Amino acid sequence: MDFGSFDRRQFLGAGGAAFVCTLAGHKLFLDQPADLPKLAGNVKVPPKVAAAQGPAATQFVSDTTASAAARAQREYWISAEQRGWNIVPTGYDEMMDKKVKGKTQFKAYTYRAYSPDFKEPLKRGKIPGPLIEANIGDTVAVHFRNKLDVPVTMHPHGIFYTAEMDGAYKGKYTDPGGFVQPGQEFTYIWDARPGTEGIWLYHDHGPMDPIPLYKGLMGPLIIRDPAKPKPDVEYYIFMHSLQPVATNLPQQFGCMNGRAYAGNTPTLESKVGDRVAFHVIALDNDFHTFHIHGHRWVENGTVIDTKAMGPGDSFSLEFTEDNPGRWFYHCHVFSHLHMGMNGWYLVS
Amino acid sequence: MDFGSFDRRQFLGAGGAAFVCTLAGHKLFLDQPADLPKLAGNVKVPPKVAAAQGPAATQFVSDTTASAAARAQREYWISAEQRGWNIVPTGYDEMMDKKVKGKTQFKAYTYRAYSPDFKEPLKRGKIPGPLIEANIGDTVAVHFRNKLDVPVTMHPHGIFYTAEMDGAYKGKYTDPGGFVQPGQEFTYIWDARPGTEGIWLYHDHGPMDPIPLYKGLMGPLIIRDPAKPKPDVEYYIFMHSLQPVATNLPQQFGCMNGRAYAGNTPTLESKVGDRVAFHVIALDNDFHTFHIHGHRWVENGTVIDTKAMGPGDSFSLEFTEDNPGRWFYHCHVFSHLHMGMNGWYLVS
Amino acid sequence: MDFGSFDRRQFLGAGGAAFVCTLAGHKLFLDQPADLPKLAGNVKVPPKVAAAQGPAATQFVSDTTASAAARAQREYWISAEQRGWNIVPTGYDEMMDKKVKGKTQFKAYTYRAYSPDFKEPLKRGKIPGPLIEANIGDTVAVHFRNKLDVPVTMHPHGIFYTAEMDGAYKGKYTDPGGFVQPGQEFTYIWDARPGTEGIWLYHDHGPMDPIPLYKGLMGPLIIRDPAKPKPDVEYYIFMHSLQPVATNLPQQFGCMNGRAYAGNTPTLESKVGDRVAFHVIALDNDFHTFHIHGHRWVENGTVIDTKAMGPGDSFSLEFTEDNPGRWFYHCHVFSHLHMGMNGWYLVS
Repeated sequence: MDFGSFDRRQFLGAGGAAFVCTLAGHKLFLDQPADLPKLAGNVKVPPKVAAAQGPAATQFVSDTTASAAARAQREYWISAEQRGWNIVPTGYDEMMDKKVKGKTQFKAYTYRAYSPDFKEPLKRGKIPGPLIEANIGDTVAVHFRNKLDVPVTMHPHGIFYTAEMDGAYKGKYTDPGGFVQPGQEFTYIWDARPGTEGIWLYHDHGPMDPIPLYKGLMGPLIIRDPAKPKPDVEYYIFMHSLQPVATNLPQQFGCMNGRAYAGNTPTLESKVGDRVAFHVIALDNDFHTFHIHGHRWVENGTVIDTKAMGPGDSFSLEFTEDNPGRWFYHCHVFSHLHMGMNGWYLVS
Repeated sequence: MDFGSFDRRQFLGAGGAAFVCTLAGHKLFLDQPADLPKLAGNVKVPPKVAAAQGPAATQFVSDTTASAAARAQREYWISAEQRGWNIVPTGYDEMMDKKVKGKTQFKAYTYRAYSPDFKEPLKRGKIPGPLIEANIGDTVAVHFRNKLDVPVTMHPHGIFYTAEMDGAYKGKYTDPGGFVQPGQEFTYIWDARPGTEGIWLYHDHGPMDPIPLYKGLMGPLIIRDPAKPKPDVEYYIFMHSLQPVATNLPQQFGCMNGRAYAGNTPTLESKVGDRVAFHVIALDNDFHTFHIHGHRWVENGTVIDTKAMGPGDSFSLEFTEDNPGRWFYHCHVFSHLHMGMNGWYLVS
Repeated sequence: MDFGSFDRRQFLGAGGAAFVCTLAGHKLFLDQPADLPKLAGNVKVPPKVAAAQGPAATQFVSDTTASAAARAQREYWISAEQRGWNIVPTGYDEMMDKKVKGKTQFKAYTYRAYSPDFKEPLKRGKIPGPLIEANIGDTVAVHFRNKLDVPVTMHPHGIFYTAEMDGAYKGKYTDPGGFVQPGQEFTYIWDARPGTEGIWLYHDHGPMDPIPLYKGLMGPLIIRDPAKPKPDVEYYIFMHSLQPVATNLPQQFGCMNGRAYAGNTPTLESKVGDRVAFHVIALDNDFHTFHIHGHRWVENGTVIDTKAMGPGDSFSLEFTEDNPGRWFYHCHVFSHLHMGMNGWYLVS
């Protein structure tokens, strides 16, 4: 059979981007490595950011912010740090029962939780970052320290925040929280007002967006109604990919929480009778469908077992566990599944 | 035009298949210019269209249609016209605080509103076309004149219409409203029956579909329940791309209403206390997620701030404005965002 | 780092990807033919599968399973078989009124229904396979015989099943139902428990996944509430593509139920006054939006006429027919529409 004359452009369809963004005048492509610190050197410091420059270790904290932080019901100390990260620590794909070839380690960017006043790190940074949790009515203060060599931020979804607290780079309109420089700090004040209940996320939205996020700067944020009982078992699952532009590796990985392939992605566990909640977040350039074997849940009166999601989407599914055994959860986009976006759910 | 030096990887973007359609035996690709009038010359005029050929300026209007139009509660005169269109009038990307390089003007196809009997144009044609608005129970008559050099149509979503009024090319089964030839007119009669309430769209669905639509032939259609209060502020936002096949430009743009990059896309405005509605429509080859900073809305009892949409989808989000400042609204697909699919929302 | 030798096709991935999976150490791409039997020869038989090996024609049926099957309210005999399949039997695209060039026949894999004990086939196998139907409370027994030359399975969505009955290949953890070898049988027992009502699907999820599914191994599964009246007219529609990796043809087709282009895809029929249900299922590597002309339906209180779907999604739309004529139903992703994902709906 002759495929020579076939125009393969027809198959580059729907979904698979090469272009991802233009930073400092350079076009970046998902399948090409990028030198982020070098590009960051060419980004102008926005005027409000330059003006807010304060003492070295506490760059942008106004008296108002400090006093709001002191009153906050929830206070977090979180840094952005680089760390070595193995996407496939076992070197094995348990779904296909085969070794994963090639290099799987890269220098990730992670959000890392600290004890108060950044006295000591609580754990190693990971993908995703620490859970930020609030009840309706709480004020959340996040003291953010940038230990990377490029400017980054924390931008939340869902929770209430004023425009100065959105953690988004906005060109010449950028507020200090939208451009936290290396070695500097910013304190974000966010309000879990009534009407913000749900599962959300936070992620970098600084001047290098979306590459720092693609390298791991993302985390879950949940706002609860304290009148509702908490599930017995909860998991937070980010569906995303790790691509050459972020990893400098020559291979693309489909990930759950920064890991690829069952046995490396989170192995979720529960027991029969548990009230189980999965909080699922999609955050890369693609659309996904989240699917679990042997289980289903109700959404607006309809029973489903597969949920389509786009970048930035987040949702919670809940069920009472009634089915013991070894189950798959996975993205139902077949190429994503086979690039590693699958994991085990074990019910005893 | 020389496309030799153009890096075509930009066009493999998220959702953006290279192949788009076959017209008159020619395969068209999103990243290659197309000569639409030449292709149109090879399209057969369907038999019912040929049979309906009437006097020059009023081709297809039967007595029944004329009498329905005379009784219609809403009557529109709309043409399809070519006009020069600048995708980035400021030449600037305010999100990334940088100049946009390269040519950004092309010959767009636009729907343009006229005063009764096409006496005079009301405004210049634009992307999207004029709002078609009805209350439940209204009949809508749209007198459509094709001032382009290729056959085009108006095909609505959501509203009730008989098969002859669907504005769709159907090969040899095509009705006159599905193939309005250059220089001809057709009057569409559509009924906003109970059960059709909502935000909808109209677009070309003629024999050159989807290229005329990709060049700008799309517009919003809303059917209201008059018992419900109108929002204080309303915006209609089309999420789409402008690609080489439609623009003959060597670059792809991610657009809101035919413009790319904040400062060019619509700058939305409201004030605290306003009841605000955004009517969002996705209409290209891609999937999008619509996201606004600092705001959220309720859908079926769940609070969300990001909404996944596919081609042809339309939805309305509403909230009471409580958060002053400069905000982004954008597609959360990162490559779309960085190809220009973002804008400002200013709250005073 | 040297990226020179890197095969960038893997990165066209996500969503419409050229890369689809790795089988037996070989990367497969959507646009390249694959020799499935040869690859299958290199797949290890999992230990539990080898241990369960029984008499030739009835490999894996335990006493427990046999007794559950005997008590089942619904009992099916279904094989997987290869057959010649013409994607475009008329050779014509009625939407664009043009001939479809090139070869359109390939060796499909189909599920085929038999009379009890596989005495005789009921019809020829087709894409999709036979409807599996149950009322809430029913047990379903599916006797599955693999007449192909590669291991395949039946994996259902939505319905309750124990982990041994999931029909999924799980590497070394694979149960016999997840790896039905050529010439062997397995009986699946599934329970339509309360809380599983809805439109679902079944498909191959064996060790060659997703290629056998891409070649046609998919079918509809519906669980009904017997207290609700059945629609007067019902259709089951799979939105999917047939690609070179599955067909060995040099062209990609957008399909409804294994056929491409109006006149080949199912021509749906009803009459005014009918209560009509379309059960729509998306099952390939892409996202789709299902759209019908001249009709709309209510979802959670909102009237829509377009529904975005991802791989594995299924939904039912219902309306009372009130609009006679010749209508299109189609995927609203324009390139899919123009690769054949459209059909006629005729209302008398």
